[in-house]
Amino acid sequence: MPTIADKGRRMPPSPIRKLVPYADAAKARGVEVLHLNIGQPDIETPQVVRDRMRTLDLKVVEYSHSAGLEGYRRKLAAHYTAQGIAVSHDQIIITTGGSEALLFGFMSCFDPGDELIVPEPFYANYNSFATAAGVKVVPVRSTIDSGFALPPVKDFEALITPRTKGILICNPGNPTGYLYSRAELEALREIVLRHDLYLFSDEVYREFCYDGAEHISALTLPGLEQHVVMVDSVSKRYSMCGARIGAFVSRNKELMATVLKFAQARLSPPTFGQLASEAALDTPASYFTEVIGEYKQRRDLLVEGLNRIPGVKCPLPKGAFYCVAELPVDDADAFCQWMLEQFHHEGRTVMMAPATGFYSEPGPGRSQVRLAYVLHKDKLRQAIDCLAQALPQYTAVRKGAVAAGSV
Amino acid sequence: MPTIADKGRRMPPSPIRKLVPYADAAKARGVEVLHLNIGQPDIETPQVVRDRMRTLDLKVVEYSHSAGLEGYRRKLAAHYTAQGIAVSHDQIIITTGGSEALLFGFMSCFDPGDELIVPEPFYANYNSFATAAGVKVVPVRSTIDSGFALPPVKDFEALITPRTKGILICNPGNPTGYLYSRAELEALREIVLRHDLYLFSDEVYREFCYDGAEHISALTLPGLEQHVVMVDSVSKRYSMCGARIGAFVSRNKELMATVLKFAQARLSPPTFGQLASEAALDTPASYFTEVIGEYKQRRDLLVEGLNRIPGVKCPLPKGAFYCVAELPVDDADAFCQWMLEQFHHEGRTVMMAPATGFYSEPGPGRSQVRLAYVLHKDKLRQAIDCLAQALPQYTAVRKGAVAAGSV
Repeated sequence: MPTIADKGRRMPPSPIRKLVPYADAAKARGVEVLHLNIGQPDIETPQVVRDRMRTLDLKVVEYSHSAGLEGYRRKLAAHYTAQGIAVSHDQIIITTGGSEALLFGFMSCFDPGDELIVPEPFYANYNSFATAAGVKVVPVRSTIDSGFALPPVKDFEALITPRTKGILICNPGNPTGYLYSRAELEALREIVLRHDLYLFSDEVYREFCYDGAEHISALTLPGLEQHVVMVDSVSKRYSMCGARIGAFVSRNKELMATVLKFAQARLSPPTFGQLASEAALDTPASYFTEVIGEYKQRRDLLVEGLNRIPGVKCPLPKGAFYCVAELPVDDADAFCQWMLEQFHHEGRTVMMAPATGFYSEPGPGRSQVRLAYVLHKDKLRQAIDCLAQALPQYTAVRKGAVAAGSV
Repeated sequence: MPTIADKGRRMPPSPIRKLVPYADAAKARGVEVLHLNIGQPDIETPQVVRDRMRTLDLKVVEYSHSAGLEGYRRKLAAHYTAQGIAVSHDQIIITTGGSEALLFGFMSCFDPGDELIVPEPFYANYNSFATAAGVKVVPVRSTIDSGFALPPVKDFEALITPRTKGILICNPGNPTGYLYSRAELEALREIVLRHDLYLFSDEVYREFCYDGAEHISALTLPGLEQHVVMVDSVSKRYSMCGARIGAFVSRNKELMATVLKFAQARLSPPTFGQLASEAALDTPASYFTEVIGEYKQRRDLLVEGLNRIPGVKCPLPKGAFYCVAELPVDDADAFCQWMLEQFHHEGRTVMMAPATGFYSEPGPGRSQVRLAYVLHKDKLRQAIDCLAQALPQYTAVRKGAVAAGSV
């Protein structure tokens, strides 16, 4: 039997999905599982998209240009430009989700062994794409006490080696919901220029900012035309994760020509998804007002509820639809599994993503979980109730187990 | 300015699309360009797919399972089983086109520097996915004189090294249209077992076999449960290239678990495309009877027409919708460019794919082109007329240029 490749073995399993078998078993027992573990919004896809798809009648479902439908790219460039991000359609390559933009970018920019500094905790799949491209992720730790702000410049400088080739940020952040300030982005700009690095900015949650906070795209930072890659996606913006449409955006011509070669190899991004995404650009502003208002209410409800539970700490995020909470447990992985295997409150339990998957090594993540507020407020209230009941129970069970010597 | 990665630099540009700027210029001059260069069929997508897409109204366009919608996988497994390829739904991972299946497979099976033997000429993008995964493609030459039959076993044996980890075939073949016989597949089976190799079988053209010839899937070869990967796609079968839906099919559990990790990193294959592909499984048999009949007529018309042109040689392919022809020119790349830049006949010219892109190094491909018969028969007749006019003209021009010393 031929062997599995080393890279295949090292590929990390999804930390967001690894508890799925326990959730399935809970459901089989009749327990309702509240999914706070995954960023699959329940918000409806805009009506303009649904209308477009219904009236679509493609005689032949053809390949598009490898860089994406030109009409869509032109309309998207106009959309960005109207948002203050001045780009032209040839500075955009449409990808199969933000995922493919990251993979193509990593393969085009980084040689095996090159180092990419990423503020931690970070989106778990960055590790996966780095593994696929042979890139070494070097974490720079942000802390819950600072609300997951950008670590100080000296922390970055301490990590720079001759192999450092880039910095990757997610803004606003998954899993933390942290939104970088202008001062923080200026600090990043200085480091990037000083060491001639690529700056990858994952901005797929750009629209979702709260409390009047302003999102600043890395593409608006002056003097970084050759350095910045913006990764985008329609998945969360229009609540259409299944369309699998993203974008690789850069003003670096040589880099665009390189990424296009990867894009040509896989021929074309999905045609249906591109047509849906093009239609989505006509989504009225009122849709976003409503959706952002809804997410803000959910955020407030969840974060306030969490902080009311004794021993739980959760900073208030300014963007995206996630938060990272510290729980009074020593092993959040075990606690999350226990919630699915042993616990229910009024027939319900909560599925969460243990934060260890968002850190490059065990450490502060051990007591933390990521929660997505993509469910209806009633469900979020139920989830808070569950957690408020579960934590003292779990502590008592653990103490009993320790006392009985069975740990 | 940060540098481009070595892998990015080595990534080959698409040989099928590299002449596009010349074609665009010809069109701008008012010349009609007959596209025999690319396998984008003009055949209509089945009506069941179009009906399904029109009645679709997804409130939320959600992610599917990373391995694909379970309903689709179950229906696809039943479809394969009915074709004599007995597999279950958990032996299938739905991918974003056959392209992604190849990439995930290469990354899961092969370490950088591992060698993959591929009968040549081969689909150009195999080189791209190999470059992306760091795999070394080792070509084994098939010849136009044998109609591109499988090279003899001794040719494979001569190429086996301690780094040889797999063999990749395309059956029926792109670019040659060659369909492997049972004896040829048995020969491959022996080599694979003797050296414990993976056998990747790209079977995306499986339905398109002519003259009563039978397609034999590698998955039906006994004793290769741990070795065979079948790569599939709906692109050509249902004339829906833009859906970007393929499949990675294997009975090797460890390999499936590894590929699933890559699939999880990119979250989900396209949801719209999966729903279209699920609907496509209800395509009536009459659709294929009609389409295969049409392709057969086109093949006969094109291949006979080509062989009537003095100096042109083109074996009759038994499958797919391509053929490789040898032309009386010493540099098919230059000739294809000249056809677009300098030539037209009655306002038309032909775009072809120079075969050099399908060989790993210059050689026999220098005088060969790949032609796709995905256009209406009237267009194919016009294309043959063009070539019959162009070849003597080109020869005369070249002779004149040589005489004038300007070459």
